[in-house]
Amino acid sequence: MSTTTRKIRMGMVGGGSGAFIGEVHRMAAALDGQIELVCGAFSRSAENSRKTGQALCLDPNRCYDSYQQMFAMEAELPEAQRMDFVAIVTPNNSHFDIAKQALTSGFHVLSDKPATFNLQQAIELKELIDLNQRLYALTHTYTGYPMVKQAKAMIAEGQLGAIRKIVVEYPQGWLADAPDADNKQASWRLDPAQSGISCCMGDIGVHAANLAEYICGDQISQLCAELYSVVDGRELDDDGVVLLKFTGGAKGVLMASQISVGEENALTIRIYGEKAGLKWSQQEPNSLWQVFNDQPTRLYRTGVGNLSPLAQAATRTPAGHPEGYLEAFANIYRNFAAQLHAWNQGETSENKTFDVPGIDEAIRGMAFIENAVSASQSDIKWHPFSLSPKS
Amino acid sequence: MSTTTRKIRMGMVGGGSGAFIGEVHRMAAALDGQIELVCGAFSRSAENSRKTGQALCLDPNRCYDSYQQMFAMEAELPEAQRMDFVAIVTPNNSHFDIAKQALTSGFHVLSDKPATFNLQQAIELKELIDLNQRLYALTHTYTGYPMVKQAKAMIAEGQLGAIRKIVVEYPQGWLADAPDADNKQASWRLDPAQSGISCCMGDIGVHAANLAEYICGDQISQLCAELYSVVDGRELDDDGVVLLKFTGGAKGVLMASQISVGEENALTIRIYGEKAGLKWSQQEPNSLWQVFNDQPTRLYRTGVGNLSPLAQAATRTPAGHPEGYLEAFANIYRNFAAQLHAWNQGETSENKTFDVPGIDEAIRGMAFIENAVSASQSDIKWHPFSLSPKS
Amino acid sequence: MSTTTRKIRMGMVGGGSGAFIGEVHRMAAALDGQIELVCGAFSRSAENSRKTGQALCLDPNRCYDSYQQMFAMEAELPEAQRMDFVAIVTPNNSHFDIAKQALTSGFHVLSDKPATFNLQQAIELKELIDLNQRLYALTHTYTGYPMVKQAKAMIAEGQLGAIRKIVVEYPQGWLADAPDADNKQASWRLDPAQSGISCCMGDIGVHAANLAEYICGDQISQLCAELYSVVDGRELDDDGVVLLKFTGGAKGVLMASQISVGEENALTIRIYGEKAGLKWSQQEPNSLWQVFNDQPTRLYRTGVGNLSPLAQAATRTPAGHPEGYLEAFANIYRNFAAQLHAWNQGETSENKTFDVPGIDEAIRGMAFIENAVSASQSDIKWHPFSLSPKS
Amino acid sequence: MSTTTRKIRMGMVGGGSGAFIGEVHRMAAALDGQIELVCGAFSRSAENSRKTGQALCLDPNRCYDSYQQMFAMEAELPEAQRMDFVAIVTPNNSHFDIAKQALTSGFHVLSDKPATFNLQQAIELKELIDLNQRLYALTHTYTGYPMVKQAKAMIAEGQLGAIRKIVVEYPQGWLADAPDADNKQASWRLDPAQSGISCCMGDIGVHAANLAEYICGDQISQLCAELYSVVDGRELDDDGVVLLKFTGGAKGVLMASQISVGEENALTIRIYGEKAGLKWSQQEPNSLWQVFNDQPTRLYRTGVGNLSPLAQAATRTPAGHPEGYLEAFANIYRNFAAQLHAWNQGETSENKTFDVPGIDEAIRGMAFIENAVSASQSDIKWHPFSLSPKS
Repeated sequence: MSTTTRKIRMGMVGGGSGAFIGEVHRMAAALDGQIELVCGAFSRSAENSRKTGQALCLDPNRCYDSYQQMFAMEAELPEAQRMDFVAIVTPNNSHFDIAKQALTSGFHVLSDKPATFNLQQAIELKELIDLNQRLYALTHTYTGYPMVKQAKAMIAEGQLGAIRKIVVEYPQGWLADAPDADNKQASWRLDPAQSGISCCMGDIGVHAANLAEYICGDQISQLCAELYSVVDGRELDDDGVVLLKFTGGAKGVLMASQISVGEENALTIRIYGEKAGLKWSQQEPNSLWQVFNDQPTRLYRTGVGNLSPLAQAATRTPAGHPEGYLEAFANIYRNFAAQLHAWNQGETSENKTFDVPGIDEAIRGMAFIENAVSASQSDIKWHPFSLSPKS
Repeated sequence: MSTTTRKIRMGMVGGGSGAFIGEVHRMAAALDGQIELVCGAFSRSAENSRKTGQALCLDPNRCYDSYQQMFAMEAELPEAQRMDFVAIVTPNNSHFDIAKQALTSGFHVLSDKPATFNLQQAIELKELIDLNQRLYALTHTYTGYPMVKQAKAMIAEGQLGAIRKIVVEYPQGWLADAPDADNKQASWRLDPAQSGISCCMGDIGVHAANLAEYICGDQISQLCAELYSVVDGRELDDDGVVLLKFTGGAKGVLMASQISVGEENALTIRIYGEKAGLKWSQQEPNSLWQVFNDQPTRLYRTGVGNLSPLAQAATRTPAGHPEGYLEAFANIYRNFAAQLHAWNQGETSENKTFDVPGIDEAIRGMAFIENAVSASQSDIKWHPFSLSPKS
Repeated sequence: MSTTTRKIRMGMVGGGSGAFIGEVHRMAAALDGQIELVCGAFSRSAENSRKTGQALCLDPNRCYDSYQQMFAMEAELPEAQRMDFVAIVTPNNSHFDIAKQALTSGFHVLSDKPATFNLQQAIELKELIDLNQRLYALTHTYTGYPMVKQAKAMIAEGQLGAIRKIVVEYPQGWLADAPDADNKQASWRLDPAQSGISCCMGDIGVHAANLAEYICGDQISQLCAELYSVVDGRELDDDGVVLLKFTGGAKGVLMASQISVGEENALTIRIYGEKAGLKWSQQEPNSLWQVFNDQPTRLYRTGVGNLSPLAQAATRTPAGHPEGYLEAFANIYRNFAAQLHAWNQGETSENKTFDVPGIDEAIRGMAFIENAVSASQSDIKWHPFSLSPKS
Repeated sequence: MSTTTRKIRMGMVGGGSGAFIGEVHRMAAALDGQIELVCGAFSRSAENSRKTGQALCLDPNRCYDSYQQMFAMEAELPEAQRMDFVAIVTPNNSHFDIAKQALTSGFHVLSDKPATFNLQQAIELKELIDLNQRLYALTHTYTGYPMVKQAKAMIAEGQLGAIRKIVVEYPQGWLADAPDADNKQASWRLDPAQSGISCCMGDIGVHAANLAEYICGDQISQLCAELYSVVDGRELDDDGVVLLKFTGGAKGVLMASQISVGEENALTIRIYGEKAGLKWSQQEPNSLWQVFNDQPTRLYRTGVGNLSPLAQAATRTPAGHPEGYLEAFANIYRNFAAQLHAWNQGETSENKTFDVPGIDEAIRGMAFIENAVSASQSDIKWHPFSLSPKS
């Protein structure tokens, strides 16, 4: 079997029973038949890890008690069996340690977001990646949608003219009620020790910021922020708004909320240029609207007409067969698998070449969180966007 | 004929050929057959005024050369012929003088918005209204929609619990291009001498602020503002965002824009409480969405089911026969006509009783504009909302 | 005052208190300030007629006891006062007699739909119109919408290529429950003596057929019909489907229903040609969708871009200020007023020139009803569309 | 490893490079990590079959030259390696032969739809299934959506009352142009020798009929049909309409079209009962609308609130993370995998218990096609729905 056609072998840290995002990663990795889950340290409980692995039909010998054990044991396996990369799907505070150990053990890393607990770690992580010469992917899932890629291409082509205004919103409602101590998803996200200095901005605001920068090909340069803890007793933000200025001159408004009761996962972006505007909504992901002052609105649809190459490459089914969140997620896995195949064959392998979000996005994301929190605590309106750790 | 069934007699200042809003006022006034246009000073050009009156089939003797002439002549007519109120539909800078003269001449006033050129004038206008004991209405049109009234009622009933977050947006795109000197609508709005200290916030931001306060029954208490002149060479703002805090504790975001290319008149509001959220969009005005975390979304529709009394009273046609902007506008005229009938019969006549926006809304509107402009010029983030004129 | 600028004077038969459609006609007639209601015989009860007239601020001397009296008295008034036309808004079974007497008394007629009780009467009515040389308009309201006119223009221009398939639907739900004897709107429509041989097809199916023919510029040539009385105990149809073939070769499906519970007034049409399709829905009337196999959907919006002359002429407010049912209705009145002005000045005056539905549409509508009922009673699938009365 | 946790082993016939539906089956089977593709006869070309298998990282020894070879060789493998079932994804005319041989060779079958070339074969297939005591699944994909299952549950609970009217539509536009001889998807579907007696009704109309019967729990008892070959030169239908009567008394309209230019895959269903209506659209599959005459519309959303058990079981991600076509498809695979696990453990295993479409649906589907074609050829309007082969 040639290297190009063997499956890429994945290990997983986290994702034991009761977790949500681990299962999403497994489905996304499996969808295209290019990646095989071969091992895991699914839980800090060795028992839970074993049971999870068994339910996944894994070889019991490769259901490990800890990620340390996993990296050690896998490194000793013959190359033809050994995992290629590890998917990290644990709570935020352990991402960095696991990634660090994986890289130094010789494994590539795909990490759930945020990449690290703080900006300082993200900067260190970039150094580790460079030092160990391994690949790193970060699951900014929402950039995996075909119509997000279409929007990026249309803007790059100049279809909007200079960008003037960007409105990106990420409202959710699931934290509108006081968190049930039994709600595992809520409790760790609202705990500074596990989640970091921000809940809402760190969990979803950062997706919104990344989406704006990805589509527009521009970067946040200044911000004015106001973060709120709406529900009594919370230490971290559950809602907030960040005003933005971009290097290219565009102004922006970023809203993120976890207390917008009744909202599901309503990430939307609207971008207005000199000549036209674009609108996209994650909950109707296969539609991209281009609006004009003096001609009919154009509705671009996944799979219809002559879309951009990246949009087409991110599409699996014909028009009208809706693709959703898991397909967008799988696009990151698929692109990362292609990057790994190339790497295995000794090819130079930049994340951008493979349209894979990586450590640069990780650093900007962690910086966004720290800048937003810092600006929110200030009485001054505007602050420069800084890539230096705040503390 | 009893007083209750005679038509209310309207005069008009402004609205000559080439004007937009004058024709809207005339259609709104005519729709329900309760108001008769009897006279006008439609233009600063006596010739244009006469021609406009002729096209409207008015008595040529009541097509006046100026509003001063109109008020003087109408005041001398027998009570059974004399106009009851004047509709003011001129550019912003003349609203105050015309209203002042109308009130002192004994006429009631319905004014297009904004009420005056600045806050100081609005405060003076309130004194004139009180002094002359006449009625005053301000066309905050968007509160005339049935489903806006339904939203207000649902919140007043506590269906949302305490309000936490209000997002109100008013994007338009028609000023995305540099203004054509020939575009009458654009040129006066962008001219500080005619329009005042703000274009975008003064023209449409103020509608958004009024809508939020009307629906929620709450008032802005603090704000952080950033107004932009996006298109080169403009003296006034054509885009902006205002962060809000309300007296009841809710946080808000208000966006207004005239450079959001491709947007028509997309006023929308979303309100999130402890228990549920509400969403309404002016471009689909007959739908009101109530969203919940744990039960199906409810779509209230004009004319369907047991809506609130004010919503029902604002509805003319059965469900599914869409009512639009002119009907909302006509609701203000209809309610004002009812208020005038009551006044004619000697009844105490508060605007609120008749659901008519009036001088209090005018003052808050002018204050909103001055506060927003002032806050935008400051480096400090938050400012109290003040009812004192800024200059 | 020149003839061109005087208001057109309208009388009304029907529309007393408790009626729905009479009030709609009055609002539609009033909206543009071109038509003045001067008299009426609003009810078979002289008392109700007088009270209705009083509430409308009419001259008590022109609130008549009967339409016979009205036509006689108005004919004797000086030309400068006399009504120009009568609006007929009574139940179906009296339309013909009233129209006949109006025409022979020298008055123009605008009639609510259906024009007559049966096809035979419609044919006779055309003869009376020709004989008396008077104008006749029929309120096929839904063709009054700007985007319906835009659709017609786009098809006439060949933007769709040859039309292949037309799907027109008119679902309502208001007769899903057994009719309350107290529901005035329901009871007469379900009574063959007042309504004719069909309820659902006669009341709304005929609008759907007219809409298809108006937009496509083509005529029904064959049909296969199935009409149902879904709710027990009804003598007339409350639901039905008619398969269609058009003279130009297109195939069609027409569905009409009054028992589609939860539907408001959901008239929609979809037209597929060789090159593109068009979709329009009455409940979102300001949007017209053009769909293609290989390029983005185009959304045409009232007031945006370079629409067809008839669409622009039917538009009153700028883009994003939604126009609704009353504006569409008023477009028929406005066009009829223009036709009357032209007639008053001695100009030849074809309905088509003024985009006013008239007696030809009335005849086709009555024929549609009779053909549909007849085809439904047959075991044979297809029947030619005939303009000869069935009985 | 216990039997319950080993992966189910799948073989595939068809799905070589250039095929569309084979790849869809593979993704659907892979998504949940419960099924492993172990072998295939992917093409009538042994070369294509091998290459396809290689690209899928299969063991080259299990990439077979023909399905006959595959069944023979797999049958000889040890039980712990042997495939459990075969997925049949070839053109219609070979489905029966392959299924027959698989069953007689001891393998379970999952077949793409239609199950067979004609009704006679489907009846024979049922006998073969019974005789060989093997499981059989048919991919009526659209019943795999969570909100379709929710609709079924709500109707079963009586939330709509007795069903009165069903409108099910399946418009596509992709055959609006004359088929390119190079379009592999189009050419075989329009060829009677490969596709059978119907193109449009056989390919998509049958999905619509199945969806109606699945959701409503009722069966078609009579039909009136009209099938068209709209594009010149076609031997088979590319458009059609079927009027329906159901055993429970409901009336229906089924429209299917492949020439509705601009339509993607717009399967929709609307069901009206005595008390409420339901609407669902495949292109926005996570929304289910329940409409009422006298209360707000309810919008049920995948993942929100207390949905029916089958809907919840068919959901993988939280609300607002859209699930699409591949997830619906995967639900059939997942349910079939559960049925296979149960069978492997000796449990009685009815398709209905596992919510898997099977041979009964296959027979009704083939009967629908034959009845529709036959009724279309008749001049008589109504025909009983018969389960006897027509020829």
